[in-house]
Amino acid sequence: MSNDEAPPLYQQIAGQLAELVRNGTLARGEKLPSVRELARQHGVAQTTVVQAYHWLEDARLVVARPRSGFFVAPRPVSLPEPTAASRPQRRPCEVSVDWLGQRILGRSQPPDLISFSSGTPGPEMLNPDRVRRAVTRAVQRYRHLLCAYPSSTGQEEARRALARYAVGLGCTLDPENIIVTSGCMDSIGLCLRAVTQPGDVVALESPTHFSFLEVLQSLHLRALEIPTHPRHGLSLDALQLALDTQPVKALMVVPTLSNPLGACMPQAERRRLAQMAARHGFAVIEDAIYNDLAEHDEMRRTVKSYDTTGHVMLCDSFSKTLAPGLRLGWVEAGRWTEAVRGIKDLQSGGQSAVLELALADLITQTGHAAAMRQLRAQAAARLDEARHAIAAHFPPGTRVSDPPGGLLLWLELPRGLDAVRLHEACLKERILIAPGTVFSTSGRFRNCLRIGMGSDWTPQHLAALRRVGDLATRMLELPQARAA
Amino acid sequence: MSNDEAPPLYQQIAGQLAELVRNGTLARGEKLPSVRELARQHGVAQTTVVQAYHWLEDARLVVARPRSGFFVAPRPVSLPEPTAASRPQRRPCEVSVDWLGQRILGRSQPPDLISFSSGTPGPEMLNPDRVRRAVTRAVQRYRHLLCAYPSSTGQEEARRALARYAVGLGCTLDPENIIVTSGCMDSIGLCLRAVTQPGDVVALESPTHFSFLEVLQSLHLRALEIPTHPRHGLSLDALQLALDTQPVKALMVVPTLSNPLGACMPQAERRRLAQMAARHGFAVIEDAIYNDLAEHDEMRRTVKSYDTTGHVMLCDSFSKTLAPGLRLGWVEAGRWTEAVRGIKDLQSGGQSAVLELALADLITQTGHAAAMRQLRAQAAARLDEARHAIAAHFPPGTRVSDPPGGLLLWLELPRGLDAVRLHEACLKERILIAPGTVFSTSGRFRNCLRIGMGSDWTPQHLAALRRVGDLATRMLELPQARAA
Repeated sequence: MSNDEAPPLYQQIAGQLAELVRNGTLARGEKLPSVRELARQHGVAQTTVVQAYHWLEDARLVVARPRSGFFVAPRPVSLPEPTAASRPQRRPCEVSVDWLGQRILGRSQPPDLISFSSGTPGPEMLNPDRVRRAVTRAVQRYRHLLCAYPSSTGQEEARRALARYAVGLGCTLDPENIIVTSGCMDSIGLCLRAVTQPGDVVALESPTHFSFLEVLQSLHLRALEIPTHPRHGLSLDALQLALDTQPVKALMVVPTLSNPLGACMPQAERRRLAQMAARHGFAVIEDAIYNDLAEHDEMRRTVKSYDTTGHVMLCDSFSKTLAPGLRLGWVEAGRWTEAVRGIKDLQSGGQSAVLELALADLITQTGHAAAMRQLRAQAAARLDEARHAIAAHFPPGTRVSDPPGGLLLWLELPRGLDAVRLHEACLKERILIAPGTVFSTSGRFRNCLRIGMGSDWTPQHLAALRRVGDLATRMLELPQARAA
Repeated sequence: MSNDEAPPLYQQIAGQLAELVRNGTLARGEKLPSVRELARQHGVAQTTVVQAYHWLEDARLVVARPRSGFFVAPRPVSLPEPTAASRPQRRPCEVSVDWLGQRILGRSQPPDLISFSSGTPGPEMLNPDRVRRAVTRAVQRYRHLLCAYPSSTGQEEARRALARYAVGLGCTLDPENIIVTSGCMDSIGLCLRAVTQPGDVVALESPTHFSFLEVLQSLHLRALEIPTHPRHGLSLDALQLALDTQPVKALMVVPTLSNPLGACMPQAERRRLAQMAARHGFAVIEDAIYNDLAEHDEMRRTVKSYDTTGHVMLCDSFSKTLAPGLRLGWVEAGRWTEAVRGIKDLQSGGQSAVLELALADLITQTGHAAAMRQLRAQAAARLDEARHAIAAHFPPGTRVSDPPGGLLLWLELPRGLDAVRLHEACLKERILIAPGTVFSTSGRFRNCLRIGMGSDWTPQHLAALRRVGDLATRMLELPQARAA
């Protein structure tokens, strides 16, 4: 962590422990080795270890508990959170995505930027070697499939593996009804095309995933934003009101770790949503891409698990947890399965069979659950560090979300602070942040920011995050910034 | 070839030679070994070899030339071809694809069918081991790419390889403007979405590729079928008339080995088409998927090669020539490159980088051109055998296309013969053929058939093809079939 040539001994020990917290070896709340044990391990005096632990306490990575020892710090609770649900306008509107969102959240960014635009774990949080071995095995074993058109719905073995996997999402699915896709957005696009016609109204969370707005625009659909609570997600009362007054054909929703809020819908609400869909006959397009990143098992249970009428279309992929480079996702489209199959058939005609079989191998390996646990602990460490930096360096009055997992934070800056200007100021210093406006259809959330800790997490990133806070503080002090 | 326990010696030798013709080792018109040479090789009497050659002559695989020896038979010329261009209706219409086409041409068929539904070379005509080695190398070398989101436009190395490859299509392309996709239909769908809005009119050949009709339907576009000549392809005079009277936004066209006709547009017409597109401002969506299967190099040159204004969108893939299981294609979208990129970005976000890099390796290997030559020779042998069987077993008056390559034949049966009924009669005997009606929007081509020799080519297939001819002949003799 230090840039000195030879940091003091206690700092070296502290740095190693900090690394174990960051890479998920030591998880939140876990007990650390005793002072005596650690001193023996490192062959140093016990006072040196005590110094190291105090350094970690100062960095808020460790807490001391009297007569118990030292522990990895639990979730920090000191930051104020956003409390009220959003209040979008009540009419559906054409989507017109602006260039800003595409520039910020598109996948081709200059390499010299320090980017907070991504919530996807980078290669250093995943396990390329494990994936490589599985792919190599599949290529050897199924080489003949390289020269044949694949089934457009997916290899049977892959669909069976996905059905087994879906048990962890609370679902009992028939492999016959699972369709393998090239990712979660592919799944969602297929669902939308299956249940809507151009001009139809689609409801979605507010704020929402930028790509959801893009896909609605590209399919000539109208967006109806629904008030969403920063902790409990989509307001079903507001949705009910919308259903009573608007011809809603489908709802796009991320019940677990919504993007950008990080909200998780309570289980009772999930059940109610499935019932509402059945009663009103609209399609729930459920995005479960972050479910494996949720810290508690019960949050992983899907709306689909409560679906008895086939109105919930479950979309998922392994791009956030295993290997984005495989380009594989899946969908169980309920009563619209045939329609989705038909559209998929002529859109791309199936994924690479060998990659599907590698995926089937990977998600049924016994080590997979442990890999997910480690990934969650790594993500939690990044979240905690980022929240500490925000608490220390952002202007007073800043509110920040407290998501139970994932790699995204949602910040509400003090009223009057213009996040688009802050974005521009940051860009001049080669720092990329996403202003809240890009997560809605009409310029709301102008004092909000999304901070993603996916692409990389280095001391430079922490420094950059502190710098964003300093720039925000300075802008608040400048009247022309407030006037915007 | 024979089902006897021990066929006579001359038949064994003839069978081996027939196999060399079928697998492309001996190409059309190539000289066969002399009688003396072959007798020495096999350790048999020269009269046995002469017997074998006569057997092959009877099977029309070989011709004798006085004082020159025996040669692989050239293209058979004895069959009458369709001569007139199609005459579709002149108004654009909504596309309503019927269940029949989806059942026949969809990718999931019962395994016990003898199918003539595919024009794609099967694994036995391609080289799975060559592909496997390339994929394994790429996975080893680029393992880190397995756990990262790929560039949605494709790996730079792949785009460079594709630009080099496109030189063979007569094109000088900038790798920057090439977008890798998951296949040719993916490319075409992206192009359509980039240049049209729901309700727009898209022109296309008549008869046309079934999937073209499906994709127009799924995108809520109207189809305008343009008269098409069985040998020279799309009529540009008819297209001009359509442009003068209809708001045509795009043209979908397969200038080389059109599907199902197998027509090839003359080069002068290709140049004229590029000029028409520039003058009228519509997009030419050119499907070049069969260009590598054309027997003569000059037929491989694309309409795109004459495009000076960016109105031609070139769509291509390697699914018909190298490895359908890689699921890779590409598009150069001319002036609509940015729009295609945007839609692609949110549809699936890029293909597997390791597979793209394997493709780049494969298409730049020195052996690739030779593999293409062999593939063309294999396809030519199948075409010839099928045409012989049709000449001998289909009702008099049957006309059959004479495509310069590929694996598809288009048959015009005598007037009054109902190909949909023939299809049904064949299906009862577990033989699958595609009636002409599925290649148009409104029931035309009812006396036509498409025969595809891609999926497999065995003595059972030849027998089944003869059986189709017998069934057709019998139906012609039954008055209720003629009345249909």
